[in-house]
Amino acid sequence: MNRRMILYMPLQILKLEALIMLLPAAISFLYRESCGWSFLICAGAALAVAFIGSAIVHPDVRVIYAKEGFVIVALTWALMSVLGAMPFVISGEIPKFTDALFETVSGFTTTGASILRNVEAMSHGLLFWRGLTHWLGGMGILVFIMAIVNISDQPIHIMRAEMPGPIVGKIAPKAKETAKILYLIYIVLTLLEILFLRIGGMSLFESAVHAMATAGTGGFGARNNSIAGYSPFIQWVITVFMLLFGVNFNLYYLLLVRNFRSALGSSELWVYLGIFGTATAAIALNIRALCQTAGETVRTAAFQVSSIMTTTGFATADFDRWPGVSKAVLLLLMIVGACAGSTGGGLKVSRVMILAKSVHREITKMLHPRAVTVMRLEGKPLDDGVVNNTLTYFVIYCAISAVCFFIVCLDRVNLETAASAVIACFNNIGPAFGAAGPTRNYADFSVVSKLTLTASMLLGRLEIFPILLALSPVTWIKK
Amino acid sequence: MNRRMILYMPLQILKLEALIMLLPAAISFLYRESCGWSFLICAGAALAVAFIGSAIVHPDVRVIYAKEGFVIVALTWALMSVLGAMPFVISGEIPKFTDALFETVSGFTTTGASILRNVEAMSHGLLFWRGLTHWLGGMGILVFIMAIVNISDQPIHIMRAEMPGPIVGKIAPKAKETAKILYLIYIVLTLLEILFLRIGGMSLFESAVHAMATAGTGGFGARNNSIAGYSPFIQWVITVFMLLFGVNFNLYYLLLVRNFRSALGSSELWVYLGIFGTATAAIALNIRALCQTAGETVRTAAFQVSSIMTTTGFATADFDRWPGVSKAVLLLLMIVGACAGSTGGGLKVSRVMILAKSVHREITKMLHPRAVTVMRLEGKPLDDGVVNNTLTYFVIYCAISAVCFFIVCLDRVNLETAASAVIACFNNIGPAFGAAGPTRNYADFSVVSKLTLTASMLLGRLEIFPILLALSPVTWIKK
Repeated sequence: MNRRMILYMPLQILKLEALIMLLPAAISFLYRESCGWSFLICAGAALAVAFIGSAIVHPDVRVIYAKEGFVIVALTWALMSVLGAMPFVISGEIPKFTDALFETVSGFTTTGASILRNVEAMSHGLLFWRGLTHWLGGMGILVFIMAIVNISDQPIHIMRAEMPGPIVGKIAPKAKETAKILYLIYIVLTLLEILFLRIGGMSLFESAVHAMATAGTGGFGARNNSIAGYSPFIQWVITVFMLLFGVNFNLYYLLLVRNFRSALGSSELWVYLGIFGTATAAIALNIRALCQTAGETVRTAAFQVSSIMTTTGFATADFDRWPGVSKAVLLLLMIVGACAGSTGGGLKVSRVMILAKSVHREITKMLHPRAVTVMRLEGKPLDDGVVNNTLTYFVIYCAISAVCFFIVCLDRVNLETAASAVIACFNNIGPAFGAAGPTRNYADFSVVSKLTLTASMLLGRLEIFPILLALSPVTWIKK
Repeated sequence: MNRRMILYMPLQILKLEALIMLLPAAISFLYRESCGWSFLICAGAALAVAFIGSAIVHPDVRVIYAKEGFVIVALTWALMSVLGAMPFVISGEIPKFTDALFETVSGFTTTGASILRNVEAMSHGLLFWRGLTHWLGGMGILVFIMAIVNISDQPIHIMRAEMPGPIVGKIAPKAKETAKILYLIYIVLTLLEILFLRIGGMSLFESAVHAMATAGTGGFGARNNSIAGYSPFIQWVITVFMLLFGVNFNLYYLLLVRNFRSALGSSELWVYLGIFGTATAAIALNIRALCQTAGETVRTAAFQVSSIMTTTGFATADFDRWPGVSKAVLLLLMIVGACAGSTGGGLKVSRVMILAKSVHREITKMLHPRAVTVMRLEGKPLDDGVVNNTLTYFVIYCAISAVCFFIVCLDRVNLETAASAVIACFNNIGPAFGAAGPTRNYADFSVVSKLTLTASMLLGRLEIFPILLALSPVTWIKK
């Protein structure tokens, strides 16, 4: 266990985060808001801590293994969330630390669940910071730093721990190159969305905030009624971009290098689009009585399905008032989530595919006990280790959901609110049903529930294992 | 595929069921009720069909394999449910066939979910028949016939398919002997409960009905308010016997042969008792304000935990009105269920233990990729096949729950009612929350929902695979 590296790397991220905070600070000063100073104070304090800390724990050996990778990622996310929450507290716009932490973790994990009763009362600087946390958390902040500097000799271990999905593939021979390519695609797509939103007539500030929230599949917007107040054109733009950011980014790389066959032959992509089409059709049929025109019905259904299945969490309608079937569809989409290697959360489509294939294999085995069966995904045979890891991931995923559900039930909310709030936070969606519905917020939950939901967001974004390993005493025992 | 045996065996069960129907017929005549004739008509028709059918499909070869075992069990349960529903229809006490089928499948699968608005209006004959379906379904009707006659040369395949739990152990060298021992223990325990209920002052008829419902962990009683109207003594007797019938029956055999060390060393037993104790304490603390005395609090909590975790479904209180945490605890107990090899349903404690051990192994593997880990249950190493089967079982269990949840949501009931009704039927409990709560019933669900819930009860009782295999086209293709 390389303990120095485990402390050293998170401190480097703090430095980076401090520098990034200059951006919302600049925006604050541009709008003549006093909250700019809170960013500068936090950045200064963070830099001081990080430089002194780095000097103390400076590692002689930079070798890390899978174990260190997990722990570094868990610790980094915890630290950067605490720092990220401070501007809210110092500026007084979210005075309670637990609330500010909830909001920041919700941002970095691209959940988008908010404790704010009135988003429109926030200053521009902090609204921008909320969007920026989505954007940084979406692709992974450690992946970001890896794209810039040579931080470690074995960056793949960090990438594996931070990138979502059952299998993390390198698209370039080196992890650093892979990180660079991913971030370039990410930046270009974000800029494209800003452009389209501008064409739709949205202000530059709101375009940037919404594009960052879409890119990270987060869901923090700038208005109390989310996207409902914007034009149909803007709603369609966001629908399409949410879908785009829910696709495995490796496919965009394949398109860039003109490998169209591999890109369009991805079975995960087609299952993902199939789920989108089926769910949109089902919900459109189910809610048609609630809408004025056929166009509005399709737009509302497509927007909400895209928003929920990519785990973004924007809303154009109060889906909490929809009929039970539509709510059941949304609940299932929350759990399935987006594609692996995207910025979306949930179980991930490819994981669900592996689970389905495992069931199929088991039934075949029962019928033909001696048959040899090989499971394949995207044309490649699946390693037994990956299959087993996916199966146990699902078990632990359910167990954590159950535990969080219990704790939130202590709040005396009804079971629907408790269950959907846990599902919406753990899978990084944001709005849920009942008291945590799209027109409400998480302000009224108890401190214990808020902390539980905060933890579940982190567990969901980092796909459980890094945090479990970091908390496991076995990890820390010296051999 | 031995197609003749697949038809032949279910027909033998029909003969047996026809003979068993003479018992409720006798009770009807004893109480001078006209419904006795409906049993005689059904028995006569079934015997005619079974004898003619048996003559036609009489098998030359009695060899069967695992595949045939699964299909035979699925087909038998479907056929015997249809026959079992007929007396309700013919007597006119449940005029609609879908309702009668729901009630009968609920009986045989030991679910105890009822569509009856007024149980007390039923005739004695049919009340007894409801209890008898629980008793027969609890230990398995195919296991019952195996205990009496030499029905097949490979009875173990049938036993494996009908007995619940991840691993079916033979306690005697031959499956027939095992079946005999199990049924003897079952009969003795049932008689003991009747004795205790009589001591508590319950009438012989009601004692028999309740004892059969407890033995099968079913839940069909004789009164509209379930067990709430009986004395504390009777409530405690039923609490203890529910717990006893939720234990793996192999342990009673071990006690009989004086192998106390193995019996009391069973880790599943201690986890089961641990869950009972913890859940009772938690609920007692949570509901203490709703009860008059400490004694009543403990009795109510212990009764409901025992009833729900053994998947019986009796009630002494309207637990639908309890606080959220207590309801959440009950919901989780429904899913975990009783011990493998008992008459209870749910996932089974040993399956949950295997799932937990798998998660532990996966985390160990991540920390020490080269470590060799052997999973053990009850001191014996677990076969990888069993572990994999358990993991995929859990996946398919969740998938079926989700599909049923969808369909029931079409009824425009709220999500809590839909979700809890599916969980309560699929895990063979009976009463759920909301519109399907303990003081309500399943009468108001649509026909589609009733058929879905009926199917889920069968899937839950037979542990999914037999029905899936029987419905899979691959099973029926000739090589």
